[in-house]
Amino acid sequence: MRSLEDLYAVVPAGGSGTRLWPLSRATNPKFFQPLTGTSRSLLQATFDRLDPLVGPDRIYVVTGVDHAAGVARQLPRLPERNIMAEPAPRDSCAAIALAAAVIERRNPGALMASFAADHLIQDEEAFRETVREAASGAADGLLMTVGIMPTRPETGYGYVQCSETVRPLTAQPVLKFREKPPLDVAKQFIESGKYLWNAGMFIWRTNVFLARLAEYRPDIAKLVDQIAAAWDTPEATEVLGRIWPTVPRIAVEYAVMEPAASDGRVGTVPGDFGWSDIGDFETVAALLGASESGSTVVDLSGEPSAGNSVAGLDSDGLVVLPRRGRLVATLDVHDLIIVDTDDALLLCRRDRAQDIKKLIELLHERGAETYL
Amino acid sequence: MRSLEDLYAVVPAGGSGTRLWPLSRATNPKFFQPLTGTSRSLLQATFDRLDPLVGPDRIYVVTGVDHAAGVARQLPRLPERNIMAEPAPRDSCAAIALAAAVIERRNPGALMASFAADHLIQDEEAFRETVREAASGAADGLLMTVGIMPTRPETGYGYVQCSETVRPLTAQPVLKFREKPPLDVAKQFIESGKYLWNAGMFIWRTNVFLARLAEYRPDIAKLVDQIAAAWDTPEATEVLGRIWPTVPRIAVEYAVMEPAASDGRVGTVPGDFGWSDIGDFETVAALLGASESGSTVVDLSGEPSAGNSVAGLDSDGLVVLPRRGRLVATLDVHDLIIVDTDDALLLCRRDRAQDIKKLIELLHERGAETYL
Repeated sequence: MRSLEDLYAVVPAGGSGTRLWPLSRATNPKFFQPLTGTSRSLLQATFDRLDPLVGPDRIYVVTGVDHAAGVARQLPRLPERNIMAEPAPRDSCAAIALAAAVIERRNPGALMASFAADHLIQDEEAFRETVREAASGAADGLLMTVGIMPTRPETGYGYVQCSETVRPLTAQPVLKFREKPPLDVAKQFIESGKYLWNAGMFIWRTNVFLARLAEYRPDIAKLVDQIAAAWDTPEATEVLGRIWPTVPRIAVEYAVMEPAASDGRVGTVPGDFGWSDIGDFETVAALLGASESGSTVVDLSGEPSAGNSVAGLDSDGLVVLPRRGRLVATLDVHDLIIVDTDDALLLCRRDRAQDIKKLIELLHERGAETYL
Repeated sequence: MRSLEDLYAVVPAGGSGTRLWPLSRATNPKFFQPLTGTSRSLLQATFDRLDPLVGPDRIYVVTGVDHAAGVARQLPRLPERNIMAEPAPRDSCAAIALAAAVIERRNPGALMASFAADHLIQDEEAFRETVREAASGAADGLLMTVGIMPTRPETGYGYVQCSETVRPLTAQPVLKFREKPPLDVAKQFIESGKYLWNAGMFIWRTNVFLARLAEYRPDIAKLVDQIAAAWDTPEATEVLGRIWPTVPRIAVEYAVMEPAASDGRVGTVPGDFGWSDIGDFETVAALLGASESGSTVVDLSGEPSAGNSVAGLDSDGLVVLPRRGRLVATLDVHDLIIVDTDDALLLCRRDRAQDIKKLIELLHERGAETYL
């Protein structure tokens, strides 16, 4: 475990979580919200999970300039220099590559792991054990990923294809990264036993990752290197502002992991630690809701009295996220998602929750940005 | 029209309007709300309608002690001594009889008309003309009522039965007062052409009404007379507080109008002036709502921008009362009443709007009085 002394944890904190609107907003995205069953936000829970693994000095958060202050407030133990503010979102390859390049200059050949800011993990010790196991492969020069042992033929996630049957904590090479599949394909994946969910958890040596990036996407590698070279200098802001907008927008899976897998350079350690992405209200309800008279009430207030905030007569199948101090009363209402926030109320049929994005497009068209 | 110089207008302002919850509350009842299409409340619109008829000095408002201050604030031109505060609701006979007895002592043999505080009238001049016509009958010693020319077989109102076909502004004797009928009976009423809606509008000389009350309900007459005798004295509060709770609770129709009609002492002048009672959200929507993409939005804010407060995708048949500054967004939601207020949100299937009272009972059972 010697190598873990060099481990850095990078947390890209981007994306507004449109399927969680109006709870999640551009100005107050999902990772800032207490969607954890406690008063801690998803970002804070992510920090808490990584802290015992690497300590606060080696946690880096890459986020939009709009959210840098929020990150600083929510994570008072995170050093300011570890908050990397992107002038604009350039997708995951740019964010991760920039963090890798800056860490590489500060600590050459360091181990770096990347984890989303808005996932929930039940068994944190098992999570950390899996990361340590993957770190061994990374120390040996592989691009490692922690894939999630799948529990259902989910069509909302990408998959990691292996050659052997996947087993928790048992490392093996990755053959391919697979995009979100249709249901019949997802079922085949699950039946084969050789697929993992791709949760965007990566571990590698920074110099190894940057070498692969230079090989597969020399354009991105060159731009990111210019920014990283200026990072700890007075020119940092000027260089970032000038070059960052020209960095190609692409996910790290497409830019690096997929070609590296083809070249036999990617390994995985399957993880089984109660992972969830908090992608939509159904997930929020399933993970954080309490059943009440045939409906599910999600209390994000941290107050014990939230049950009093919903009163239903002849109503069921509801998913209710009430606002603290406000009553939601329903009469003969069924199968709706009801989300009450300070300035906006969402009512959505449960089987249309994936289309909340369309509602947001409608609000954009109407110029109702104040609610987005 | 000489007699109109003696006309007093009495406005019983009671009842919380439970079918309009959560807009209407025990603490902020329907008559205080701007359900008029303007920023004026129903009570203020009632005052505005009576002011040209009798002037503010001869308008009396009988209301609960809890609402006396609200009446004073909403009607700054109403003399304080014309606000009669009931320690507890004792139904319409007690409220009207007390007003009649107090007015009789201040101006013996005066004409008095009684009008609800929470009705809406479109053609106010026609209304006043009808009242003047009815005042003639009252001056001649009859108990007069202004019945409303019915437009549909409504089962939510009581009816006034006449012997001849009813015609606007054409007085005739009343045979009977009829309770809210079932639909088939209501249809017979409409087809016969001899029935009017009972809107609780009465006109009589105070001494005539009090004589009939003494005849039909001497118990009530005696108690009310004791209170009225003390009204303009220092003992008023003590006497009211002691005697008022013992006055029988009964509607004036049952106590006086029905037996008086049997005795041939009641007349009516049919009115046709665009009358509505604002009894439920469907009525509110029909009278005050604006159609928008298949739904009806009721703006009570008096702001021109209210249309922006509702955004629906694949939604229709909604009745939405948005709260100022808040957005209601719907996705695949149909045929619901949505009422957004400061501290409570109501979602109710449109065909269950009459059962909002049951929802209120549920909240009572739960001890959620703060929302009632």
